[in-house]
Amino acid sequence: MNDADGSGMGIVISGKPLASCTLGIVGLGLMGGALALALRRVFPDSGQEGRGSDDGGPGNGRPRILACDTDGITLRAALEQGLIDGAFPDPAPMLSRCDLVFLCLNPSTLLCFLETWMGAFKTGALLTDIAGIKGSIVEAVEKNLREDLDFIPGHPMAGSERGGFSNAACCDFRGKNYILTPLKRNRPDNLESLKALIRCLGFGRITETSAAEHDRKIAFTSQLCHVIAAALIDCESDLEITRFGGGSFEDLTRIAMLNAPMWTELFIENRAELLRRIEQFEGSLETLKTLIAAENEKALEEKLAGVRDRRTLMTEKR
Amino acid sequence: MNDADGSGMGIVISGKPLASCTLGIVGLGLMGGALALALRRVFPDSGQEGRGSDDGGPGNGRPRILACDTDGITLRAALEQGLIDGAFPDPAPMLSRCDLVFLCLNPSTLLCFLETWMGAFKTGALLTDIAGIKGSIVEAVEKNLREDLDFIPGHPMAGSERGGFSNAACCDFRGKNYILTPLKRNRPDNLESLKALIRCLGFGRITETSAAEHDRKIAFTSQLCHVIAAALIDCESDLEITRFGGGSFEDLTRIAMLNAPMWTELFIENRAELLRRIEQFEGSLETLKTLIAAENEKALEEKLAGVRDRRTLMTEKR
Repeated sequence: MNDADGSGMGIVISGKPLASCTLGIVGLGLMGGALALALRRVFPDSGQEGRGSDDGGPGNGRPRILACDTDGITLRAALEQGLIDGAFPDPAPMLSRCDLVFLCLNPSTLLCFLETWMGAFKTGALLTDIAGIKGSIVEAVEKNLREDLDFIPGHPMAGSERGGFSNAACCDFRGKNYILTPLKRNRPDNLESLKALIRCLGFGRITETSAAEHDRKIAFTSQLCHVIAAALIDCESDLEITRFGGGSFEDLTRIAMLNAPMWTELFIENRAELLRRIEQFEGSLETLKTLIAAENEKALEEKLAGVRDRRTLMTEKR
Repeated sequence: MNDADGSGMGIVISGKPLASCTLGIVGLGLMGGALALALRRVFPDSGQEGRGSDDGGPGNGRPRILACDTDGITLRAALEQGLIDGAFPDPAPMLSRCDLVFLCLNPSTLLCFLETWMGAFKTGALLTDIAGIKGSIVEAVEKNLREDLDFIPGHPMAGSERGGFSNAACCDFRGKNYILTPLKRNRPDNLESLKALIRCLGFGRITETSAAEHDRKIAFTSQLCHVIAAALIDCESDLEITRFGGGSFEDLTRIAMLNAPMWTELFIENRAELLRRIEQFEGSLETLKTLIAAENEKALEEKLAGVRDRRTLMTEKR
């Protein structure tokens, strides 16, 4: 792996130069679409030749980008926008060609997909996913993955309250966090290559951690925040309330415009950690409530000053 | 009042054309500073002449902008930046010259200021404030205001997590909400004039409501949100947690970098409404927690879809 110029062309996947690799995206939703956009930005379309054909052969000095999706309209749109070189309604013929596969599916769909198509992946392929929960994914992969495949679980910390392929451009990767929860069996060279590619896509900080640690931290930074945003909206029926908004309410509830099936899955799948975090948060809320009810000005001001200082330090740590 | 061209020059304050009025800002903190900036944008500085002098006389076809503050360094900075035409460490000589006064103080300081300097305001002056709580202000004003003065309570719904005059430029008024809680005794022409001036400053929607309604709504859109942000930070000590942030955590806790003394005042002053809102929110949180703990996928997804739809409607209502 060597990507000194940031072009991505020095990257090697399972021993093969990225330029002659075929990359596959499974699922052209918001994240799959955003990945296709970002990949195309790094590896510009060399023109119409070969596009739309499903031979998945080498792409004139740059990797070919293929995608499969159950939605034909989305596939056609991605093809017409020049984001992908080949569209596959059926995963099998695509998977058999791909050296690197981005699995951009909801957690349960991902597990189901792996079970169904395990036999279809190209020998020695590198796989990665984007699921917002890692424990159950890693468990399944460690148990059932074909020995020749290399699966590096990942979680790009980017998104948008607007979902689906048509909003992919709203999902900006620049400077965002990316979490990887590598397995012991991962090829070290593939891990370095994936990280180099992630950096090419625009992401800022890449953090390697365990699946358990990921799920613990994400329960707080992501799932708890979504639960709070949902609870805030749940307790206000006045649709004109935004007349009284000064930014705080809008910022705290933007993520309440969520993908309900996906977040239901994430909440329930990570419920042990999430419930622990909700209770911790309820404890802090209770402390503030007590200080306010007691009109304990001094202690409340001290508490708020402490919070301000800690949040300021968190900003500086970025 | 007539401001068809948006220049502010058609506005009349207590019967006097704005162009020949003297405007005063009491307190050059974040909001006072932002107001000075916005006023100067509407009424450009005509040069050095007379600036710094404290005569407060008419300003060559545009209103003069004066300010008083306890901090001499801030006053000098505002003067040097050309934001104000006159700086007053002592309020009395400024107040006696001003046709319109913006009182940009914390609620308790405002009440104290009004009590101390009630005799100093110019006869027939128009006063307005920016306090984030209106019940106690309106009560005090209705009881103690000099009969010749016209006080229109206001709340510009703008701010910044960075406080003080030096961050005034971070406080953007464009398109923001402005709440007015007029008193029965307010001169209708002054109310219209103030609204016209507020629009000139860049604000979007102006809402007129009662002080009680303001405090009820603000307890939700502003104070509850700040309590939630503070509680979120209070329950996490890992300063590196932002490595796991994807935007939600950052958005929900930015306002935790708050002005501790001011928010302590606002929370305690509006505690009845705020505690009611916290409890309502706790109820919604409890419902979500129960659904997650019970792994009730169907009900949880329905609840989240309802929340998403309601929040989307709130956005469209803007």
